[in-house]
Amino acid sequence: MEEAMQLNSIWGSGMVIHFTNQLSPSVIEKLTFLVEAIYNKFNFLLLRSPVWLFHLPLACSFPFKTQNPSHKQNVDTTKTKQPLLQHIVVDADKRTYSYDRMEPMIFIGGMPRSGTTLARVLLDAHPDIRCGEETRVLPRLLQMRAQWIKSQKEKMRLEEAGVTAEVLNSAIAAFIVEIVAKHGEPAKRLCNKDPFTMKSAVYLSELFPRAKFVLMVRDGRATVHSIITRKVTITGFDLTSYRDCLTKWNKAVTIMHNECQSVGPSRCLMVHYEQLVLHPQVWMEKILQFLDVPWDDVVLHHEQLINRPGGISLSKVERSSDQVVKPINLEALSKWVGQIPEDVIRDMPSIAPMLSTFGYDPRANPPNYGDADQWVANNTLKVAQQERHWMNKTQELLKAKKQQLSHDEFEDKFVD
Amino acid sequence: MEEAMQLNSIWGSGMVIHFTNQLSPSVIEKLTFLVEAIYNKFNFLLLRSPVWLFHLPLACSFPFKTQNPSHKQNVDTTKTKQPLLQHIVVDADKRTYSYDRMEPMIFIGGMPRSGTTLARVLLDAHPDIRCGEETRVLPRLLQMRAQWIKSQKEKMRLEEAGVTAEVLNSAIAAFIVEIVAKHGEPAKRLCNKDPFTMKSAVYLSELFPRAKFVLMVRDGRATVHSIITRKVTITGFDLTSYRDCLTKWNKAVTIMHNECQSVGPSRCLMVHYEQLVLHPQVWMEKILQFLDVPWDDVVLHHEQLINRPGGISLSKVERSSDQVVKPINLEALSKWVGQIPEDVIRDMPSIAPMLSTFGYDPRANPPNYGDADQWVANNTLKVAQQERHWMNKTQELLKAKKQQLSHDEFEDKFVD
Repeated sequence: MEEAMQLNSIWGSGMVIHFTNQLSPSVIEKLTFLVEAIYNKFNFLLLRSPVWLFHLPLACSFPFKTQNPSHKQNVDTTKTKQPLLQHIVVDADKRTYSYDRMEPMIFIGGMPRSGTTLARVLLDAHPDIRCGEETRVLPRLLQMRAQWIKSQKEKMRLEEAGVTAEVLNSAIAAFIVEIVAKHGEPAKRLCNKDPFTMKSAVYLSELFPRAKFVLMVRDGRATVHSIITRKVTITGFDLTSYRDCLTKWNKAVTIMHNECQSVGPSRCLMVHYEQLVLHPQVWMEKILQFLDVPWDDVVLHHEQLINRPGGISLSKVERSSDQVVKPINLEALSKWVGQIPEDVIRDMPSIAPMLSTFGYDPRANPPNYGDADQWVANNTLKVAQQERHWMNKTQELLKAKKQQLSHDEFEDKFVD
Repeated sequence: MEEAMQLNSIWGSGMVIHFTNQLSPSVIEKLTFLVEAIYNKFNFLLLRSPVWLFHLPLACSFPFKTQNPSHKQNVDTTKTKQPLLQHIVVDADKRTYSYDRMEPMIFIGGMPRSGTTLARVLLDAHPDIRCGEETRVLPRLLQMRAQWIKSQKEKMRLEEAGVTAEVLNSAIAAFIVEIVAKHGEPAKRLCNKDPFTMKSAVYLSELFPRAKFVLMVRDGRATVHSIITRKVTITGFDLTSYRDCLTKWNKAVTIMHNECQSVGPSRCLMVHYEQLVLHPQVWMEKILQFLDVPWDDVVLHHEQLINRPGGISLSKVERSSDQVVKPINLEALSKWVGQIPEDVIRDMPSIAPMLSTFGYDPRANPPNYGDADQWVANNTLKVAQQERHWMNKTQELLKAKKQQLSHDEFEDKFVD
């Protein structure tokens, strides 16, 4: 059976498209925008063409059947409805992918040194998902926009210039999709990991109505110990002071936690780093289910896919790369114990109240994070015994000398 | 006669498109990208569809004839050729326009208070062109990118993360086209006026290989007098010092002049503000010819089109709006004479050597800018005699109280 799909903007000028076979709502939605875009394009060409034609005698038969696009309530409707920008990407094998703002993008965020790289690497191992390296530019654009919007005067000036929230959002979304889609190989599900995007989760959830968010959370004492020992420069963080860094950690995770809660549990999942490394299977099952991605065992063996085609791409100069080349292990869980000054340990509940909010006992040094799955414990033993092997492997995979990381002019910013 | 156009990426899967009638190369180019985009899109849908089809039994007849697309030498070719992003905009009358990076965009720039608003308003009067208000966000994005690129370390980090120059350019171009195309009504020729974009003319000319640039130049003494008396905050400019402002003016116009010269005379036209107001017809003819836009008398009577549909949109809060509501006149030419401190007048040739470069005698106060066309001289007389009339008209058109303009947190930046 054939059914005619007649789009409002198309019907008036003599174009009818026939669809047969059943299609899912999301495909129909993409198709609707595409057909409008095609027609708009030809209409435009006709307007510019030396041959003026009032009707486009075009009739195409597509092997699709229509469905009532009643699922479109999520789509932004504005005075003059503008078609969604379609980002088309071709991979090395000439397969094509198309993305727009309705894409169910995945954003992984959290404080730096909280397992965000591990999370993205495990997802990168999945054949349907590509996250890739930190783009670095996304959080800066988001921060710039946040500054504009914060000033009432600037907001009014932009509105007066026609740069309304709608226009600005369209431009920022276009920038983000271009970067996310093209800085790595295209994939069925696009994913991004820039830790501080989590500060803009609410805004991103408006830009991308089907995006999902994963907030990585870790014991702040471990996070801060890692920031300080690895000299991770973050604007506002005094790397000589555990007290200062824990205070700033508390402030940053408060903002991110609020953003995640505002987005809501159907779209933002909080994952504890400790639980992810102690029970990778349980947590990867939760994460993939949350993301509507089918289970694949490969996410438990990401180390086999480092720098393999279709696998995991690592940056030589990202600080976590040397850790995620190894199989999931427990090396990093309790390194912080005994490293924090006594007075800071004493005042921990008041310095970092978010520890309790996240379920970490601020008085326990360390708290009991739980017992690991057997194979993770085995990994940990093996990694410890084969220290030289992993050092060589890391150097071979990353092939770059360590960067001078202090006094970084493009340091991360968490300031709200 | 019908001819078959067979695109490489399409032929392999059984899609043939027939064109009749003659089309211009630029339409063919747009069409080629479009057809590729359509096919890519459907191919993508098929890949995702539950019904797997190896061939798309699609045959469309378009009333176009093919041409050999030999004009494509300007198009970026990369390892995996990515189709150009197509920005489709629908106007209030449901007419559609499509823009991409091959668009012959118009960028008007120069120091603030050098006639950039007058230039854009005269072009806005033309039925084919829409510039609109300053977007404010374009120069900020361009400046942010310039900072990233300036740091070798940051550039390498971005490359390592897959954010290559190509990917970044694609994202920045997408942002710019979205803002420029959507912050006003769509038009046959898109135009942008944010004064400091001229600092990035070379980069913009790479992003948009067919863009053209208009550099507005004005006697620096008049520009600085206007900046100081109108309290135009620009980062680095000390508004209490003519000497400082003239020094900074000299530095800024040096950069812009270099950029314009690097882009070359076929793509960047330098226009002296004084000559534009003294001889509007001669200069608008030159400008329109340079832009490949047909002459239209309406550009000499822009004042009749302020805030009219399809005419000129003005921001209530832009500093030049109150001046361009009037017909072209000579009011602003020599206001600066007698206002600059004696020691600055004395050292003028060494403070602002660019005055001589641009042909302004640094020792003449004022120099002889030339004699005005008769009708401009008449305008000037009428405007002076009807002062109250124009004050009322301005208030009525702009309907907003003056903003407090000092201590502006989003001041313009010229710093290189």
